[in-house]
Amino acid sequence: MKSFISEDFLLSTEPARRLYHEYAENMPIFDYHCHLNPREIYENPKFQNIGEAWLAGDHYKWRVMRWNAVPEAYITGTADYHAKFHAFAKIMPKLIGNPIYHWSHLELKRYFQIDELLDADTAESIWQTANAVLQGEKGDVRTLIKQSNVKGLCTTDDPADDLRYHQLLAQQQGFKVEVLPTFRPEKALDIANPDFPGYIHRLGITLGKTLRTVADIQQALYDRIVFFKENGCCLSDHSFGAPDFTIWDEKAAGDAVQKALSGQQPTPYEVGAYQSLLMDGLGEQYAKNGFAMQLHFGAQRNLSTRIYQNIGADAGGDAIGDSLSAASLAALLDRLSKRGCLPRTILYTLNAADNDKFAAVAGSFQDESIAGKIQFGSAWWFNDHLDGMESQLRSFANIGVLSRFVGMLTDSRSFLSYPRHEYFRRILCRLIGSQVNEGLAPVDYPLLGGMIQDICFHNICRFLSKTGQPGKGI
Amino acid sequence: MKSFISEDFLLSTEPARRLYHEYAENMPIFDYHCHLNPREIYENPKFQNIGEAWLAGDHYKWRVMRWNAVPEAYITGTADYHAKFHAFAKIMPKLIGNPIYHWSHLELKRYFQIDELLDADTAESIWQTANAVLQGEKGDVRTLIKQSNVKGLCTTDDPADDLRYHQLLAQQQGFKVEVLPTFRPEKALDIANPDFPGYIHRLGITLGKTLRTVADIQQALYDRIVFFKENGCCLSDHSFGAPDFTIWDEKAAGDAVQKALSGQQPTPYEVGAYQSLLMDGLGEQYAKNGFAMQLHFGAQRNLSTRIYQNIGADAGGDAIGDSLSAASLAALLDRLSKRGCLPRTILYTLNAADNDKFAAVAGSFQDESIAGKIQFGSAWWFNDHLDGMESQLRSFANIGVLSRFVGMLTDSRSFLSYPRHEYFRRILCRLIGSQVNEGLAPVDYPLLGGMIQDICFHNICRFLSKTGQPGKGI
Amino acid sequence: MKSFISEDFLLSTEPARRLYHEYAENMPIFDYHCHLNPREIYENPKFQNIGEAWLAGDHYKWRVMRWNAVPEAYITGTADYHAKFHAFAKIMPKLIGNPIYHWSHLELKRYFQIDELLDADTAESIWQTANAVLQGEKGDVRTLIKQSNVKGLCTTDDPADDLRYHQLLAQQQGFKVEVLPTFRPEKALDIANPDFPGYIHRLGITLGKTLRTVADIQQALYDRIVFFKENGCCLSDHSFGAPDFTIWDEKAAGDAVQKALSGQQPTPYEVGAYQSLLMDGLGEQYAKNGFAMQLHFGAQRNLSTRIYQNIGADAGGDAIGDSLSAASLAALLDRLSKRGCLPRTILYTLNAADNDKFAAVAGSFQDESIAGKIQFGSAWWFNDHLDGMESQLRSFANIGVLSRFVGMLTDSRSFLSYPRHEYFRRILCRLIGSQVNEGLAPVDYPLLGGMIQDICFHNICRFLSKTGQPGKGI
Repeated sequence: MKSFISEDFLLSTEPARRLYHEYAENMPIFDYHCHLNPREIYENPKFQNIGEAWLAGDHYKWRVMRWNAVPEAYITGTADYHAKFHAFAKIMPKLIGNPIYHWSHLELKRYFQIDELLDADTAESIWQTANAVLQGEKGDVRTLIKQSNVKGLCTTDDPADDLRYHQLLAQQQGFKVEVLPTFRPEKALDIANPDFPGYIHRLGITLGKTLRTVADIQQALYDRIVFFKENGCCLSDHSFGAPDFTIWDEKAAGDAVQKALSGQQPTPYEVGAYQSLLMDGLGEQYAKNGFAMQLHFGAQRNLSTRIYQNIGADAGGDAIGDSLSAASLAALLDRLSKRGCLPRTILYTLNAADNDKFAAVAGSFQDESIAGKIQFGSAWWFNDHLDGMESQLRSFANIGVLSRFVGMLTDSRSFLSYPRHEYFRRILCRLIGSQVNEGLAPVDYPLLGGMIQDICFHNICRFLSKTGQPGKGI
Repeated sequence: MKSFISEDFLLSTEPARRLYHEYAENMPIFDYHCHLNPREIYENPKFQNIGEAWLAGDHYKWRVMRWNAVPEAYITGTADYHAKFHAFAKIMPKLIGNPIYHWSHLELKRYFQIDELLDADTAESIWQTANAVLQGEKGDVRTLIKQSNVKGLCTTDDPADDLRYHQLLAQQQGFKVEVLPTFRPEKALDIANPDFPGYIHRLGITLGKTLRTVADIQQALYDRIVFFKENGCCLSDHSFGAPDFTIWDEKAAGDAVQKALSGQQPTPYEVGAYQSLLMDGLGEQYAKNGFAMQLHFGAQRNLSTRIYQNIGADAGGDAIGDSLSAASLAALLDRLSKRGCLPRTILYTLNAADNDKFAAVAGSFQDESIAGKIQFGSAWWFNDHLDGMESQLRSFANIGVLSRFVGMLTDSRSFLSYPRHEYFRRILCRLIGSQVNEGLAPVDYPLLGGMIQDICFHNICRFLSKTGQPGKGI
Repeated sequence: MKSFISEDFLLSTEPARRLYHEYAENMPIFDYHCHLNPREIYENPKFQNIGEAWLAGDHYKWRVMRWNAVPEAYITGTADYHAKFHAFAKIMPKLIGNPIYHWSHLELKRYFQIDELLDADTAESIWQTANAVLQGEKGDVRTLIKQSNVKGLCTTDDPADDLRYHQLLAQQQGFKVEVLPTFRPEKALDIANPDFPGYIHRLGITLGKTLRTVADIQQALYDRIVFFKENGCCLSDHSFGAPDFTIWDEKAAGDAVQKALSGQQPTPYEVGAYQSLLMDGLGEQYAKNGFAMQLHFGAQRNLSTRIYQNIGADAGGDAIGDSLSAASLAALLDRLSKRGCLPRTILYTLNAADNDKFAAVAGSFQDESIAGKIQFGSAWWFNDHLDGMESQLRSFANIGVLSRFVGMLTDSRSFLSYPRHEYFRRILCRLIGSQVNEGLAPVDYPLLGGMIQDICFHNICRFLSKTGQPGKGI
């Protein structure tokens, strides 16, 4: 029996331990998808305390607090962070089995050298120990990033953003972590949202134009892709529920814009037509500009109106959506592939019942330009746990070629979340190690270790055309 | 290698064994959802024999007999129970891998102290041994219930039921097991069924009214909720395939009733409108009256017309239905949540590909009134086996907070089915035990043991506002 | 730690090893579904080399080569087989985790006694060793088949086929393997395909008739069923995406034919009506003629237009389709069951999220004519790997009666693929063995061994009304 979060946490076999400690553990991180704020990275503040660091924006933690009937005042409300931290600490013992139990204790260990279990009894001493680190000389956000061996990270940015902090970061010496923007035109695609006209107006202002038609919006986005590229961007990102990319109807797409800009609600068919048309054009531009394209499917957002109205978006009122139609997923990729302008693509699903479907679709659109050109992306959000990651890795391996996987990302709003890469790497080594142990993979450590190092770091560097050499791109 | 159904059956690690034997094994049972007949509990008969006890109503067993080409005469037909029992015994050795193989041998062991494997050779001696117990002084149904350490149970009852046997049971001294009715207005919701007008007529008679409109039906059901509450009810139950609760159209709901009561078939849209409207009103009443609401989704009933016409409903001609749309599931809960009248709810799915979706939706509607207010219910019917239960527990743990789970129920028509709680508890301890063994959970037995005892018994008592103290409510 | 592909490959427990080596290993094979070419079996050629044997038609290998950015010239293009084999060998080390890594090394071992791992370094010596065997006296395709202990195999044949090579094979002495045709009227069902009129014309020529109506097409197919039966056929096969068998509309079916034959596109509704009607009639004929009916669901074919146009069908541009509606699956079976003419049926799904649904539907239509009359078929295509097979076996066991499973088939175009039966058998013994090891199944080797031998061979013989005795049918 192993003690909790030991040296060999999650490494259930000897090959797993060897693969992790000899190959994975010291690999650098390129965190290619996160929600960190570039301004904060630039300004490099310190957190007041671990309550703020952990609870100011982490809706994963908010949800498990609500599961435990913690009053909202101690979650997103007016209580101070000391009280909120204690409220969280009190329910920690209830979280056994949830990844937050692992993540939180890993973070305590890696950032604050705290080995105790967090609960009501230990909360105050942990509060003080952690705060001393955060307020100390290694407590600024850049040091937190650097000490996790991060070579690069990609934030998530709106096309209307001026990328000012990315520019400032690029000009700056001393901080060796490459911080790149990601082009995420979420709001330009979300044509059924009442905020759409306002957003399109704002996007127009960025370019000094009034955007009235599909073509106007497309051109504006294409101009911003060029601007993002000039600022180091090599990656886009989209999030959808279950869109219907089988619809192809330029007229309906135009009608959608006319309706939406005049405050009317376009029909679902028109929304589909608009999104198909836009994604087709964007995909082509991504290919032309060397961007990779991330497609996140299967989120059902803001299904709790109470949370959305009282607290806002990304506040813990979301869930898993329906299966994506195989035909829809294929239609977008095929349309681009047919005319030779399918960009490198990462397909993510939040509905894990679709894992195999996604892995299989990816395999149908590979080509000779780069190994693993179409990726089945890492287990995401509600799937970001031991079982979910193992399931994604197995689908990738069984149906695709796991050696070509671009690996883990944090998808996080928190500067303390890099141990999720450690968590992933341990799970990866656990899986491959158990295969060695059972005679399902050959006992060839250089071969397997190389595969694991590729998945940890090298593949994503190649995928994003980064050299992987510090100072030479990453 | 362990012998079959040993002391440590299903307990594959030392922590699992310790958790089960020290914490789970002796916990009482509150079986909050079953299909036992309250009249039988009141009248307290004895079974003639194990053939009757096992085969008179158990469509799980009927199905596996049909899988083995047993003639229908020996399943639901005219053969006597001795012959039926022998027919079942003969196919038992073929059932390795099916939960019935475990359940049946557990029942033989716990109720009749029989350790042999059932097959054609042992059938006759097992028949005699079991019958001697059933016909003996401990063979009455109440003794069978009590010896399983059952503190309470909830039967499943129609709103038109007079609850006579519940009243008689409540008045009676001596039987310490609390027997409560469950409000299940199945037939009032099933408006597409040709029997709907007849049922509505019968429901009206209960109240001395003629029910002509949606409002009439709603009021009748609300009146019966009050009546059920007066008779100890604290729980409702519904079973659906894949209803569309996104439809909100009061006019169409009214049309549905007019059509159905005049013998016409309402459209699927009208059915959806009616069911959405009724569930919304019922949910509000449940909240007001302190009932918890159970929602079973994903059954596809009577898909074999041959079985339905020759034998009837619940005869083994059912299967697993389609995935429930995430939007539909959310719509019902959100509508109630928005106006502050969402009752405590248990969401069950028969389509295990939806497990994660259900667990995620549950997490979006928790509030501070009670921990685990919205539950993702236990693996059900076709999922009620080792893999299915483990999958449900893992989804609950990964995406929700397993410590708050209200646990197992038998859902059974049989007085011999309480070992399913033992089966569940062993699987629960097996899962947590393996996590301890691998260092994924801390080696803290009081903490883990408390979690397990909560799931076995305390959580459901709290959830139903029962004290959990024998003689004080349970 | 075990060495790779040892004697006890995949057999992780002592009971698994014993069950495999004492019961499964030497059982003969009846490969009831494959895509071998009967002409090649008759003419009995030798392969020029292992490049041709492995890469001429295997789109599984093509896909993983594309995943690794191998230029198409070395996949399906103009490079010679020596170069293609080297290209494949070079990427082999990347395939760890994919079943092709296991299959390929198993084939090297079983057919060529090669124990080395295939990679760029070993490629040339393996090329020479394998080619020496293929060009030697045991290198002809019949010897390859016989040495795998194959007693019978079913090819896949079009109704318009003259079955000439089956007739020649049947007349021939000396080759003891029974080679039977399978009736697969794929093209007659695929009414939305532009090639439909041409196919119907060709089918008509076979019978000397012009086919103009639904009834004409039905009668033509029924006549060919009789012809196939005269030539030893006992099995049909169909492949669908997610058809809607709930549609029943004879007029629309007729319209579909009129439109399709005159070059118009029938609507999806008309396609559904046509397919429902045809399958209903075919199912009845299968029952009448003693054919079993195979239904493959869930394939999404040719979603990559680039691959389809440049290379063709079955070239690696396919994927997994959507979940099949439970109502659709039930409708076809119920319609036949109601009037007593449901044939023995094998239901396959490519969308493993539907596994339980399929196993449950199968259980609703069993009858006393034969045990396991309705089968949930083996893990197929993208599911044909350790995890996929284990998942299918578990669904079958949990929800059905695994002892009645008709077991594995290769579904292969390759004469070197029989080790897939070995792979399956090892996985089956691994699963049952682990249950014994954990006390979940009794330690009764004759019982478990008999179950395993049934699944390996006897059940399929009974299912197809074959005697299972060499020379007496098989």
